[in-house]
Amino acid sequence: MVERQAKLYEGKAKIVYATADPNIVISYFKDDATAFNAQKRGQIADKGVVNCKVATHLFQLLESQGVKTHWLETPSDREMVVRAVNIIPLEVVVRNLAAGSLCKQTGLALGTPLTPPLVEFYYKNDDLGDPLLTRDRIRAMNLADEAQIHELTRLAGEINTLLQTFFQRCQITLVDFKLEFGLDQTGQILLADEISPDTCRLWDQAKSDQAERVLDKDRFRQDLGNVAEAYQEVLKRILAQVNLK
Amino acid sequence: MVERQAKLYEGKAKIVYATADPNIVISYFKDDATAFNAQKRGQIADKGVVNCKVATHLFQLLESQGVKTHWLETPSDREMVVRAVNIIPLEVVVRNLAAGSLCKQTGLALGTPLTPPLVEFYYKNDDLGDPLLTRDRIRAMNLADEAQIHELTRLAGEINTLLQTFFQRCQITLVDFKLEFGLDQTGQILLADEISPDTCRLWDQAKSDQAERVLDKDRFRQDLGNVAEAYQEVLKRILAQVNLK
Repeated sequence: MVERQAKLYEGKAKIVYATADPNIVISYFKDDATAFNAQKRGQIADKGVVNCKVATHLFQLLESQGVKTHWLETPSDREMVVRAVNIIPLEVVVRNLAAGSLCKQTGLALGTPLTPPLVEFYYKNDDLGDPLLTRDRIRAMNLADEAQIHELTRLAGEINTLLQTFFQRCQITLVDFKLEFGLDQTGQILLADEISPDTCRLWDQAKSDQAERVLDKDRFRQDLGNVAEAYQEVLKRILAQVNLK
Repeated sequence: MVERQAKLYEGKAKIVYATADPNIVISYFKDDATAFNAQKRGQIADKGVVNCKVATHLFQLLESQGVKTHWLETPSDREMVVRAVNIIPLEVVVRNLAAGSLCKQTGLALGTPLTPPLVEFYYKNDDLGDPLLTRDRIRAMNLADEAQIHELTRLAGEINTLLQTFFQRCQITLVDFKLEFGLDQTGQILLADEISPDTCRLWDQAKSDQAERVLDKDRFRQDLGNVAEAYQEVLKRILAQVNLK
């Protein structure tokens, strides 16, 4: 059993603790929810538990398909043991349908199919409001080099294909999602952070009404109600698929 | 003499009039100045006259170097006779040094050299606040196809090289500038709109103090004073170079 040592960092949704092994840390999933660059704050009952389980299953799925992630084990309801990485300060967003800031910034209608999917980069910087970055800006800011941008784009596309297929089996449309990557001590790029209803837009294929079909943090952002229930529903469907195997 | 007919369109800085020839329009340069998506409004004495003359000389310079522009003739102080084009709704911005929204959005320090220069695209849409676009967004929005994006990027780079060389002779640093392009009735891409202290950041190389060296619309945006004088200074230096030849 890996034991928690000093708190290294507390983010909006997770706390990272050191362990006896400098190459291993523990991610603790909180119930705290924030939106709009933390201007909106709240709590979602058992969100930490749900996200820890959802992320565990999705990381395991991706690992089984050859995608390297930081996940090692999930010893308790809210704790994930992961490889220590230096996070690349880019939020990599994959969009299959237009939603959120893309609609606001471009005027594209909600739900417009994006073919091929958009792979976008945002600067992970709360003070600047996580702005959209072009590939040229990433290079000008020395956030990543050409080869890394190419590899992140390739990985994001591969992860999208795998997740889309899986969520399709759950009768959930994967609208878009945000990934973070880090470099381990050997310089290898690993998928890090989490994949959960906090970081994905997920629409229930059984519903057509927009306010009803949302199964993700947009319920919190837009005050749609039944937030915790939606997170539980996502977990339930994932578990049903995992148990089928 | 081409005569003005019906007003076709009134923008923030110019009015466009029809002529007897449907392929030719007249651009009338106003003294009205706006900034921050028209939240700030004012007038700059004789701006229309200065910008009409500056743009005329720069279009002539570019034409002489093989760049196709909409310019045909400048029959009066505030009027430019130009080819009618369908404007591509993209603002093409070339940046040699970091300034303005780039600094605000990325945290790059004012004046950071950008090597190679950044060629950026913004959506020409006041309602949306002229947002930054990635090349992928341009394609998703069907604003331009791959070949057009490539050609606009190539043209912007070529124009930058020519303008940098010319402004260097004027002892002015070309920090950044915005271009607009249009398609004529044959589908050819022409440089349109204007190039002037309204659309460029220009720094006087004889001054090192930031508030003193600015010779462009930033004097208006930032209330630095002597706005009209700065515009006149740019024109004076351009005329001195033109008259040398």
